[in-house]
Amino acid sequence: ARVRDLGVVVGDLPTGPHNAVTDVPGVLVGHTTVDDGAELHTGVTAVVPSHLGPQRWTLPAAVYRGNGYGKLVGSTQVDELGVLESPVVLTATLSVFRAADAVLTYLMGRRPDAVSLNPLVGETNDGHLSDIRRRPVTEQHVLDAITGAAGGPVAEGCVGAGTGTTALGYKGGIGTSSRTVRAGGEPVTVGALTQSNFGGVLTVRGVPLPADELIPERDRTEPAGNSCMIVVATDAPLDARQLGRVARRAVFAMGRVGASYSHGSGDYAIAFSTAPPTRPAIPDSALDPIFAAVLDAVEEALLNSLFTATTTRGVGGRTSHAVPLDAAVRRLAAAGRLAPPA
Amino acid sequence: ARVRDLGVVVGDLPTGPHNAVTDVPGVLVGHTTVDDGAELHTGVTAVVPSHLGPQRWTLPAAVYRGNGYGKLVGSTQVDELGVLESPVVLTATLSVFRAADAVLTYLMGRRPDAVSLNPLVGETNDGHLSDIRRRPVTEQHVLDAITGAAGGPVAEGCVGAGTGTTALGYKGGIGTSSRTVRAGGEPVTVGALTQSNFGGVLTVRGVPLPADELIPERDRTEPAGNSCMIVVATDAPLDARQLGRVARRAVFAMGRVGASYSHGSGDYAIAFSTAPPTRPAIPDSALDPIFAAVLDAVEEALLNSLFTATTTRGVGGRTSHAVPLDAAVRRLAAAGRLAPPA
Amino acid sequence: ARVRDLGVVVGDLPTGPHNAVTDVPGVLVGHTTVDDGAELHTGVTAVVPSHLGPQRWTLPAAVYRGNGYGKLVGSTQVDELGVLESPVVLTATLSVFRAADAVLTYLMGRRPDAVSLNPLVGETNDGHLSDIRRRPVTEQHVLDAITGAAGGPVAEGCVGAGTGTTALGYKGGIGTSSRTVRAGGEPVTVGALTQSNFGGVLTVRGVPLPADELIPERDRTEPAGNSCMIVVATDAPLDARQLGRVARRAVFAMGRVGASYSHGSGDYAIAFSTAPPTRPAIPDSALDPIFAAVLDAVEEALLNSLFTATTTRGVGGRTSHAVPLDAAVRRLAAAGRLAPPA
Amino acid sequence: ARVRDLGVVVGDLPTGPHNAVTDVPGVLVGHTTVDDGAELHTGVTAVVPSHLGPQRWTLPAAVYRGNGYGKLVGSTQVDELGVLESPVVLTATLSVFRAADAVLTYLMGRRPDAVSLNPLVGETNDGHLSDIRRRPVTEQHVLDAITGAAGGPVAEGCVGAGTGTTALGYKGGIGTSSRTVRAGGEPVTVGALTQSNFGGVLTVRGVPLPADELIPERDRTEPAGNSCMIVVATDAPLDARQLGRVARRAVFAMGRVGASYSHGSGDYAIAFSTAPPTRPAIPDSALDPIFAAVLDAVEEALLNSLFTATTTRGVGGRTSHAVPLDAAVRRLAAAGRLAPPA
Repeated sequence: ARVRDLGVVVGDLPTGPHNAVTDVPGVLVGHTTVDDGAELHTGVTAVVPSHLGPQRWTLPAAVYRGNGYGKLVGSTQVDELGVLESPVVLTATLSVFRAADAVLTYLMGRRPDAVSLNPLVGETNDGHLSDIRRRPVTEQHVLDAITGAAGGPVAEGCVGAGTGTTALGYKGGIGTSSRTVRAGGEPVTVGALTQSNFGGVLTVRGVPLPADELIPERDRTEPAGNSCMIVVATDAPLDARQLGRVARRAVFAMGRVGASYSHGSGDYAIAFSTAPPTRPAIPDSALDPIFAAVLDAVEEALLNSLFTATTTRGVGGRTSHAVPLDAAVRRLAAAGRLAPPA
Repeated sequence: ARVRDLGVVVGDLPTGPHNAVTDVPGVLVGHTTVDDGAELHTGVTAVVPSHLGPQRWTLPAAVYRGNGYGKLVGSTQVDELGVLESPVVLTATLSVFRAADAVLTYLMGRRPDAVSLNPLVGETNDGHLSDIRRRPVTEQHVLDAITGAAGGPVAEGCVGAGTGTTALGYKGGIGTSSRTVRAGGEPVTVGALTQSNFGGVLTVRGVPLPADELIPERDRTEPAGNSCMIVVATDAPLDARQLGRVARRAVFAMGRVGASYSHGSGDYAIAFSTAPPTRPAIPDSALDPIFAAVLDAVEEALLNSLFTATTTRGVGGRTSHAVPLDAAVRRLAAAGRLAPPA
Repeated sequence: ARVRDLGVVVGDLPTGPHNAVTDVPGVLVGHTTVDDGAELHTGVTAVVPSHLGPQRWTLPAAVYRGNGYGKLVGSTQVDELGVLESPVVLTATLSVFRAADAVLTYLMGRRPDAVSLNPLVGETNDGHLSDIRRRPVTEQHVLDAITGAAGGPVAEGCVGAGTGTTALGYKGGIGTSSRTVRAGGEPVTVGALTQSNFGGVLTVRGVPLPADELIPERDRTEPAGNSCMIVVATDAPLDARQLGRVARRAVFAMGRVGASYSHGSGDYAIAFSTAPPTRPAIPDSALDPIFAAVLDAVEEALLNSLFTATTTRGVGGRTSHAVPLDAAVRRLAAAGRLAPPA
Repeated sequence: ARVRDLGVVVGDLPTGPHNAVTDVPGVLVGHTTVDDGAELHTGVTAVVPSHLGPQRWTLPAAVYRGNGYGKLVGSTQVDELGVLESPVVLTATLSVFRAADAVLTYLMGRRPDAVSLNPLVGETNDGHLSDIRRRPVTEQHVLDAITGAAGGPVAEGCVGAGTGTTALGYKGGIGTSSRTVRAGGEPVTVGALTQSNFGGVLTVRGVPLPADELIPERDRTEPAGNSCMIVVATDAPLDARQLGRVARRAVFAMGRVGASYSHGSGDYAIAFSTAPPTRPAIPDSALDPIFAAVLDAVEEALLNSLFTATTTRGVGGRTSHAVPLDAAVRRLAAAGRLAPPA
């Protein structure tokens, strides 16, 4: 279940209509799940800004490397030029280059004359549950995720690039959330989508829910850290430098859910703005509402990624357990951290 | 009171003997408090690695800019050369250059032939309580803090550079804490000292303690964000790149106590290693215990900075209230977050 | 003499009317020379964008650290916020903090309510000729340089912050130059001012003019590297990220005059734009003319800084020799690198 | 011809025995040329540190982004961990992901248990001469370049990843050079290999050799900038931070041969050290000889890449002309920039 449906409310800012990154108008999400029920639990998730097209081939964007383990394909050009020119695609570590090549195929199809294109493709390591060395993600998987992307509600948990991930001792996955705030005198939406696959102790609104206590039977073989990819979209007019400030806060939000920020965790955030280029950037001094929205949206997206995931048995017989909802809710209720039923 | 004396325990790692940055052997702390009981509430805090001397004039070091508002004098050379060559001095924003010039005086006195020296001086803005535009910090104040630095227990709260700071809705100040862990096969100590002066909602071990609730009568005029300086010392053999990783986690820890990471908050961490240069650096894959120690030590140092501070009335009649210990303890006990009395 | 008056032409882009950073409308330069004819040969140079005032307190700006030795006071906030909010002041290494404090005095005078201000003050080490440990620069020296700044022709060579510098084996100093180009469909001006104090072999339009050959009697005691500060101003509408790209090229231009980019040389560039904030930034794809202008203007500014400087005998009896103009011109003529007389 | 064979001597430092990156003991180079004599002129070049193996899977390394256009796959993890764990592979822009996937294949073959590996693959855009959108580089091409890598003399010019590149108005390609210096009391070797594909005016030891003059009939359709990849290897014991300083100077050296550092040129340098991890790093204050060696070796490698390349007619009938050696030598001789015959 999404955590808000369980009574967990992160902050007091309103969400968008779907409480999803797709609340940013024109931002679409698509998944391809690659799951054979046995050794493969992986996939592709695409965050597609539909604004990219003949009228504009770039959006302002920035990347933040909270812990630069792993590969974020395309990041150096985003740093230099401050723009995104492709869908943001997430997948598994060893499939990242095939996925990037597939994004090239997609972009080349749209831009027949282009000879330089910069796919932005992130990854986390789902090798705990999936036979990652088989590099099972194909070009078609990626194209399907991109071209099948849609607005509205977003599938979460064990789907797409979250199919095989593990986070905070539990089964992780894809999660999303959004917030609406006023900044610079106008209403803006901030949406986040996360691929959770990192270590630590799950903490919900300050209440620790250690997997070692809630799932005593679990195996504890998962690696200490395996990365977190965070995508933040907003319709606020922000330039690349400001989006860098936004991206940093997205990684800062991981601490709220108990991240250990371990050595081997590639923790990255990508932020982009869909605002028309003619709108002047919001002054930095007016960014605090957006920063607050990012912190809350990322926190809730991360919680959603765990609470919507389901127990998964994967390669080598290893199992990653879902958060036990009843036990979690009991603890949260006991701590007084659940909202009253609406 | 220090939070541990109230029953608040941050994590399960052991502290050093003084639970202070001075638990790192040879690291000294000195304060000069500049407080006229009326319009001036400021001062200087120096973290002095006594290892610097004729046998070695530098220690490996790194700086992380979580939010690069404000001035961290000396940071570019630390980035380039990866070394600290001065005490780390903290003071108030508009006094930072006079303080840096005073550190030069100190360093020139020790090194009669040197023509290039790099003081590392941080600042936060205590203008809410102190008449910051008077730039009241003198060379002698700085020299006193440095030459008076000592090991052992460290004065906290409204002292030195924390005399006039405000954090998380309450009176902030100086706080410190330490942890001992094994890393790379040997015991190491990680110590933190913080100057807290930033916005957000005070959160203790997951329990929010909003100033708006605990101090209903408080004025709410304090600025949204005014910076946090964090100094991390360790005797673990780490090189500058690794210390950069450590410093990042120090800023990440601010989120645990409720930081809003706001636009106007200059959030910086400085990390240095006192290990002899002959010891090889710990492998990165063995850093996780140190990262955990940093997160916990900074969290506890930040909490100590608030819980040891006392209500202060300052310039313009503005008052910054101490955390009301009884009320706080009641809330923490009700949430089950206090350790049983030892 | 300015090199153009000797027949040296750097590139084929036109200069502004004064071939100086002051060709960017509203950019002023002021110097205070501190020279006792004996042990002190130092001073202050201020590049003052007169655009800063009640109508706008910031300009887009960026800093590039080519080699981050030394101190560039104020750089972290420029990185974070992408703005300049003070004159750019240059001085000698050990006077940098007193100079920064003086800039604070200046800024506080203009902004009676401000409690946070970010002076940007660079330095190079003139200790070869000047008794740098005396820290002779006073607040008044700095205020005089700022308030006395003017447009039009700029004094070069042994003046202001260039009074005591040494570069490429010869007496260095302050130099300036400008270029006008079309970018993004409009004419723009790019101006540079440099404080030269770095090592290498003087090279003029590809022709080496080694001091060891041209001044056989010189003492060779100068340090291998002692920094170069470069200030670039433009009226082109560029945002901070783009100005970072501009600043990088300013440091790249040092190679053209023979810089050795040595370890101990703090090589920094500061770039700012004076364009009204309402003008949209030039697209990155249209920046090449500006990049070419920066490379040429910095090269010529560096050459001017040497060719206008005069032989100076300083502290410890050390002498830094001016480039011998006749010999230099002979070599350049022989190599066919002089323009015919106009 | 290699420029040294023409009498062009860059600096006065001695070269290694092959004047090639392979002079660094254990560093191998392999090429796969993909050239159909018509529309395809591309390939793969691999710089293979043979030191990587079961006894050590990483070498200290750093990346510098002089102009972060384009993709340098793997750079973020090099930044974070300071190590290289794969051969450095160069290829064409749109083939970079297939090449990176092939490097994965190679690495997975060597490390059967690894689930995370970080290929480092750079690219420049050879689309002026080669039908880049066909992505003609296969896994086997990459594996052949890596496994066929050898020490000793290195093929230069139109070979491997340099088959289709264009630089400074002429046909570019692969070039290499080396220098031996004493640093920190011991002899060390610095080698460079470059893939030249960038804009500007060819300048040899200060003498401009504009293609517009030397090849009046050439078409001038090549793009203003298309990148330069520089690989620097050394056996000097340097840590990652120091290698970052080395890498910066590699990009600085591009200016010496006339680079325009244009917007669209992805100018990157990768530096790694092969020294045994037990050797302590050279002090920064002893790095100047290494910096000088890098500047000279990269300059000569870039010149070699042009002077060994041959006129190539490619896709769309576009032709990239070799530097006309006779005319070039005449100009250099006239300028007195050729060494007397040995």
